[in-house]
Amino acid sequence: MAHSQWRLSPDRYFDPDPAQRRIARELYEAVRPLPIISPHGHVDPSLFADENGTFGTPAELLIIPDHYVFRMLYSQGIALESLGVPAGAGERDHRKIWQLFAENFYLFRGTPTGVWLAYVFDQVFGIEEKLTGATAPSIYDQLEAKLNSPEFRPRALFERFNIEVLCTTDFATDSLRYHQAIWDSGWQGDIRPTFRPDDVVHLLRPDWRQNVDKLSDLTGIEVNSYSALIRALEGRRAFFKELGAVASDSDGTSLATGELTPQEAEWIFQRALRGEADTQDAARFFGHMLMESARMSIEDGLVMQVHFGSYRNHNQPLFDRLGPDMGADIPFRAEFTRNLRPLLNKYGNDPRLTFVVFTLDASTYTRELAPLAGHYPALKLGPPWWFHDSINGMTRYFNQVMETTGLYNTVGFTDDTRAFPTISARHDLWRRMSANWLAGLVVRAVVDEEDAREMVAELAYGLAKRAYKFE
Amino acid sequence: MAHSQWRLSPDRYFDPDPAQRRIARELYEAVRPLPIISPHGHVDPSLFADENGTFGTPAELLIIPDHYVFRMLYSQGIALESLGVPAGAGERDHRKIWQLFAENFYLFRGTPTGVWLAYVFDQVFGIEEKLTGATAPSIYDQLEAKLNSPEFRPRALFERFNIEVLCTTDFATDSLRYHQAIWDSGWQGDIRPTFRPDDVVHLLRPDWRQNVDKLSDLTGIEVNSYSALIRALEGRRAFFKELGAVASDSDGTSLATGELTPQEAEWIFQRALRGEADTQDAARFFGHMLMESARMSIEDGLVMQVHFGSYRNHNQPLFDRLGPDMGADIPFRAEFTRNLRPLLNKYGNDPRLTFVVFTLDASTYTRELAPLAGHYPALKLGPPWWFHDSINGMTRYFNQVMETTGLYNTVGFTDDTRAFPTISARHDLWRRMSANWLAGLVVRAVVDEEDAREMVAELAYGLAKRAYKFE
Amino acid sequence: MAHSQWRLSPDRYFDPDPAQRRIARELYEAVRPLPIISPHGHVDPSLFADENGTFGTPAELLIIPDHYVFRMLYSQGIALESLGVPAGAGERDHRKIWQLFAENFYLFRGTPTGVWLAYVFDQVFGIEEKLTGATAPSIYDQLEAKLNSPEFRPRALFERFNIEVLCTTDFATDSLRYHQAIWDSGWQGDIRPTFRPDDVVHLLRPDWRQNVDKLSDLTGIEVNSYSALIRALEGRRAFFKELGAVASDSDGTSLATGELTPQEAEWIFQRALRGEADTQDAARFFGHMLMESARMSIEDGLVMQVHFGSYRNHNQPLFDRLGPDMGADIPFRAEFTRNLRPLLNKYGNDPRLTFVVFTLDASTYTRELAPLAGHYPALKLGPPWWFHDSINGMTRYFNQVMETTGLYNTVGFTDDTRAFPTISARHDLWRRMSANWLAGLVVRAVVDEEDAREMVAELAYGLAKRAYKFE
Repeated sequence: MAHSQWRLSPDRYFDPDPAQRRIARELYEAVRPLPIISPHGHVDPSLFADENGTFGTPAELLIIPDHYVFRMLYSQGIALESLGVPAGAGERDHRKIWQLFAENFYLFRGTPTGVWLAYVFDQVFGIEEKLTGATAPSIYDQLEAKLNSPEFRPRALFERFNIEVLCTTDFATDSLRYHQAIWDSGWQGDIRPTFRPDDVVHLLRPDWRQNVDKLSDLTGIEVNSYSALIRALEGRRAFFKELGAVASDSDGTSLATGELTPQEAEWIFQRALRGEADTQDAARFFGHMLMESARMSIEDGLVMQVHFGSYRNHNQPLFDRLGPDMGADIPFRAEFTRNLRPLLNKYGNDPRLTFVVFTLDASTYTRELAPLAGHYPALKLGPPWWFHDSINGMTRYFNQVMETTGLYNTVGFTDDTRAFPTISARHDLWRRMSANWLAGLVVRAVVDEEDAREMVAELAYGLAKRAYKFE
Repeated sequence: MAHSQWRLSPDRYFDPDPAQRRIARELYEAVRPLPIISPHGHVDPSLFADENGTFGTPAELLIIPDHYVFRMLYSQGIALESLGVPAGAGERDHRKIWQLFAENFYLFRGTPTGVWLAYVFDQVFGIEEKLTGATAPSIYDQLEAKLNSPEFRPRALFERFNIEVLCTTDFATDSLRYHQAIWDSGWQGDIRPTFRPDDVVHLLRPDWRQNVDKLSDLTGIEVNSYSALIRALEGRRAFFKELGAVASDSDGTSLATGELTPQEAEWIFQRALRGEADTQDAARFFGHMLMESARMSIEDGLVMQVHFGSYRNHNQPLFDRLGPDMGADIPFRAEFTRNLRPLLNKYGNDPRLTFVVFTLDASTYTRELAPLAGHYPALKLGPPWWFHDSINGMTRYFNQVMETTGLYNTVGFTDDTRAFPTISARHDLWRRMSANWLAGLVVRAVVDEEDAREMVAELAYGLAKRAYKFE
Repeated sequence: MAHSQWRLSPDRYFDPDPAQRRIARELYEAVRPLPIISPHGHVDPSLFADENGTFGTPAELLIIPDHYVFRMLYSQGIALESLGVPAGAGERDHRKIWQLFAENFYLFRGTPTGVWLAYVFDQVFGIEEKLTGATAPSIYDQLEAKLNSPEFRPRALFERFNIEVLCTTDFATDSLRYHQAIWDSGWQGDIRPTFRPDDVVHLLRPDWRQNVDKLSDLTGIEVNSYSALIRALEGRRAFFKELGAVASDSDGTSLATGELTPQEAEWIFQRALRGEADTQDAARFFGHMLMESARMSIEDGLVMQVHFGSYRNHNQPLFDRLGPDMGADIPFRAEFTRNLRPLLNKYGNDPRLTFVVFTLDASTYTRELAPLAGHYPALKLGPPWWFHDSINGMTRYFNQVMETTGLYNTVGFTDDTRAFPTISARHDLWRRMSANWLAGLVVRAVVDEEDAREMVAELAYGLAKRAYKFE
C-alpha cells in the first residue's frame, strides 16, 4: 500500500533547463512513433519460431539470461548459482531467485540496467510498485500472470514494440533452423540472421576444431585447408543472405588487421588443425580474415561489423567452473590508427564497402575513430556499445564523436541485447538522448530546429535503415 | 577597506539550474552534519601527540608542507627556496614567503587548491578579505593570532571538523610512536596508522637497504631472505593492527601483478641485497608482493589499497638538488585489464578481500576499472585521487564510473591530504559534488528523491564506514 | 524567398541557463573588441604581398584549400577531383564544385566547420540564406561579387578582422620572399614567419635530400654533416628572426625526446645522406633535434612549439595518387610523461625557455600534460588543436586542463588555420567558449566576476601576447 512507485516522468533523462527540455520533448515526440530498426543484437530466434513461444518465469525473463544483471549481483558477493546461473544450474526455485534479486535491486540505482528495468516494469508490464524485498512476491505474481497471457508472448511483444526488423547473431555453423521456421510459419515479423564466423576464424577457441568439422558437414566442403575455409565461408554467407542477412559481425579480440600471403595463411591454418597454433598465429590469422571479410563484403554486399576490444572470460576460475558469458568480459585498451590501416588502405576507399566499427575504449572516439570515419568512405562509426549504452555513454558519444565524424558517418543505434524485453527500453533511451543532445544544440544555436528535426529522425531511424540497406 | 571579499555562496559548486540546485542543497544539508571518515591520507600524527601541538606559522600551515601549492608557484618560475621549500631550507622569513604567495595567489583561480583555500580562509579562520599582495600582511597577522590561540590547535580543529576517524600513512619501518603517544594521552581522537610497506618492497628506493636493516631491528627477525621479509611484514601488520590500523596501502609505481615462485622471489631479493637488482627485478618483485599483500589481507582482514600510476620525482635535477616530494610526481598511462588479472584471478573472487584501486588515469574509468569493479567481488574502485580530487574530477568520476561499477562498488571519499586544515574543505567539496550529481539524476528522473537521499548518505559516510570496516 | 536563413543568435554557443548566459554575454562583450593575436597558423603570406591580392572564386575561398571541408565530403564518397582537389586538378568549373558542396552542406551540421562557415557567410559576407542546393547559385553570385570588391581583398579583411599580429608557418628552406614583400610594401599589417624545420629534420620525408641541398644553397653552408646542419639551422633562425619570427614549430610525428652524442647524430645524418636511414634513425634524430631546438630557443629567444601526434598521409593510395594534405592526417595515441622527460629534465627548469606543446590525444590532458605544465617552468600547454578546435573540444580543454595546469600555464588561442576567412570565426568561438566557461565558474561560485573578467581577457589576448613575447 505505502510502497514506492515508479512514476516514470514523461520528461525523463532530459536536461533540466526548461528551454532545452521543451525542445527535447518535441524532438522526442516526433520520433517516438517510428518503428524500431534493430540491426545488431543477440536475441534468441527460437523465441519466435512458434506462435506459442514464451519467456518462461520472471527469473527467466529478467535475471538468468542477462549478464548485465547478474554480474552486478555477483560483484557484491552473491553466488551466481543462487541466481540460477548458468541457466539450468544452481537454484531451481525461481521465486527464491526473484526474492534475492529484489532485495538487492537497489544496487542498480543510477545504472542503465536500472533505467531499462524501470521501463520494463512500468511501461511494458504495468507494474506500479518499485521492486524491493517487500514487493517482490506480489510483483512476481503479477509478472507470472502476464507472462502466461497471449499479450506477453514474444511475437506479441515484437509487434507491440513496433519492430520493423530485428537482426540476430548466428555462428557460421548455425543451421539457422529457427530463422527458417519463422519464415516457414508465415508470421510477418522480420527477423534476420547475421553472419558471425568467430566459431571458425578464432583459432584458439576451445571448440574450434569441432566447429571446423561442423562447417565441413554443413557445406559439404572438406575444410582441411585455408582455401577450403574461404570457400566454405563464402558458401555460408550466401546461405545467410538467402535467409535475409544484411551483415556480418566479428568479435575483435585482437586489433591488428593485415594481409597474409595465401601460403602464410595456409601454414597457420595447418598448425591450427594440428593443435599447434599459438596466440600470435591466432591474432595474425584473425587480422587476415578481417581483410578477407572486407573483400567478401564488397563482393556480396553484406555490411561488415566488428566489435573490438573485449577481453573475453577474464575471470579464469569462474570460466573454468561455469563456462563463458558469466559477466566477466572486460574491455581493454584499443588502438585503431595503426591497426586498421592495412584494411582501410586496401578497402577503405571503396564506397561499396560499409565497415562499421564498435569500440569499448571511448578514448579512441576523438583521437582515432571519429577522424578515421570522417575521412574513409567505407568506414562508419557504430553507436555506443555495451558499458557505453547508457545515458552518459550516449552523451559522451554525441559530444566526442559527432563534431569530427559528422552525423552522417554514424549508423544510428543498435541495442545489441540478449534481453528481448529491454529492446523497447533501449531504443527509447537512445531516442530520448538523441533528442536531448539535439535540443542542446538548438538552445546553443549550433543547429536550428529545422535541422534538428531531420537529424533526430536520422538517429532514430534513417541512418540505420540506409547503412544496413533495409530498403 | 575596499578589499575584495570571499563571500562564499551557500550554493557554491552546484549546477545553476534552479530545480537541480534546490535538490542539491537539500541533499547536501542532509549530510553536512555527518562526521568525517578519513580512511586514507598523509597527515602527520605528531601534530596530535601532544595537547599543545601547533601548526606553526601561516607559511608552515599552508605553503611549506603543501606540494599542491608550491608546485604551481614553481611552474611560474618562482624558486622553491624562496618559499622555504624544502622545510627548513631557503627563505626563513615567513612573512616574506607569505607575501610572495599572496602576490601570486591569482594563479590558483579555478583550481581545487583555490577552492580549498577559500574554505580554509573563510570557513576555518574567518578571514574576510581575499588574499592579495595588499591584504597579505593583515591576513598574516590574523592567522598568526588565531594559530596561537587554543581554538586552532590541531586537536581542537580535529574536534571542530567533526572527524570520526583519521587514518595516517606509515612506513613498515615506522615505530608508530606518535600513534602510541596519542593512545597513551587518553585523548579521544580516533587516529589510526595505515601499513605502507613501500620502504621495503620497492627494491630500487635509494634507502631500501637501510630500511631492510631497520625492519630487522624493529622485528627482531634478521631480514636476510625473502621468507624472512614475509615474516617480518606479517609481524609489522599485526603490530599496526594493534594500534588500530584497518588497511594497508601501496604506491603502485609499476602496474603488473603476478606471482613468482618462492625461489624466484628469493633470487631477486638476494640480488637486491647485493645491490644488483634492476628495474625489471623491482617491477616483478613488486608485482609479486601485491599478490602477497592480497593473501595477507585475506588472512588478517586489513583492507588492501593501491595507488597506481605516479611517476615519482620526474624532475631529476630538482630531485638531485632538493630531494623527493617537490611537486614533480607525474601520472603515467595505466592498464589494468591485463595487469591486475593475475591478482584478481587468484584472490578477486574471495569476498573476504577488499581491494581498493586508485588511478590517476581517468581513461581507465569506463574502459577497465568500472567494469572490473562491477564484476569481481573483492575489487572496489577508490574515489578520484590527487589531480582528480576537484570539481571536474569528481564530476568525471560520477559520470564515467557509477553507471558501470554501481555506487555500491565504490568506497566513498578519501582526502589523501598532508594539509590537515584542508580536510574539512575537501570532504565538504565531495559532499557538495555528490549532492549535485544526485540532484542531476533526480531532475532527470534517473533516480527518485527517496533513493537519492540514501545514496548521498552512502557517499558521505556509509560506503567508507563499511568498506574500511569501522564498525 | 522561403529559403531558411542563418539568423545567428547573439547568444550562440552559450549555456542555456539564464544566469550563466547573462554573465557569459557580459564577459564575451568585454573581450569582443580586442584585437586578434594569431601566433600560429598556416595562412599563405602571398595573399598579402600585394595590395591587390584576391581570394579567387568562392570555391577557392572555402573549399579547395580547406581539408576540413573536403575530407568530410570525401568521407561520403564524393571524389576529391570533383571538388577541384588538389588545387589545379580535377573539376575546373567552380560553379559545379560549389553546387556539389552546397548540396552536401548538411553534412556539416553540428561540426565546427559548420559553425565557422555560418559565421563566414553571415558575419563576414552578409549572406542571409542557408546554403543548400537551391540557394547555391545565388550565393555563389553574391560571394563572387563581393570577392571582386576592394572590401574583400585579403588586406582589407585582415584590417576588418582587427588582427594585431598573424604568424605564418614556413619551412627552414623558405626564402620568406612574401614576408619580405609585405615588409617592403610599407603596409602596416603585422605578419610574421615561424621557423618550421620539418623539411630538413625529418629524415624520411621524400624530399629531404633536395631540402638539404636547398638549405646549403640558401645559407652558403655546405650541409654535408650534422654539425653543418646545426650551423645552417642557427643561421636560418637568425634570418627568420630578422623578419619578425617569434617562434619555431615542429611536426611531432614521433614523440620521444632524447639527446644523441654528436657522433651518433653524425652517423645517422650520414646514413640519411646515403639514403640508408630507417624509421628508428629518423625517430631518434628527430628526438635529438627537439633537444637542440630547446637549446637554440634558450639562446635566441624563439618560443618552441611542437604539434605532437598526427599520423601524416594515413591513406596511402590517396597519397600515391594525389599527394599530401588530402584530409587523411589521423591522430595517434600519445605519451608525454616518459617521452618528454629527457627534454624537460635538461631544459624544463629554465625559465628562459617557453615550450608550447599541442596534443591531439585529449586523454593526455588530465593524465600528463596538465600535471607537467603545472610543474615545469618552461612548459606551457597549447590550446585545443585541430579536431579539438570546436565547441566540445574547447569545453573539454577548459574542464580537463585548467584545474590542474592553471590558467597561467596556458597560452590562449591559436587558430592554426589555412582558411583565412575563418580566422575571425575561430577566435570568436574561442572567446565565446572562454566566456561561457568562466560564466559557469561564476554561477557555481568557483571564481567571482572580478576574477572572471581578468581571466577572460587573458584567454582572449593577454596569455598569447605574453607567451609569444609580442611586447
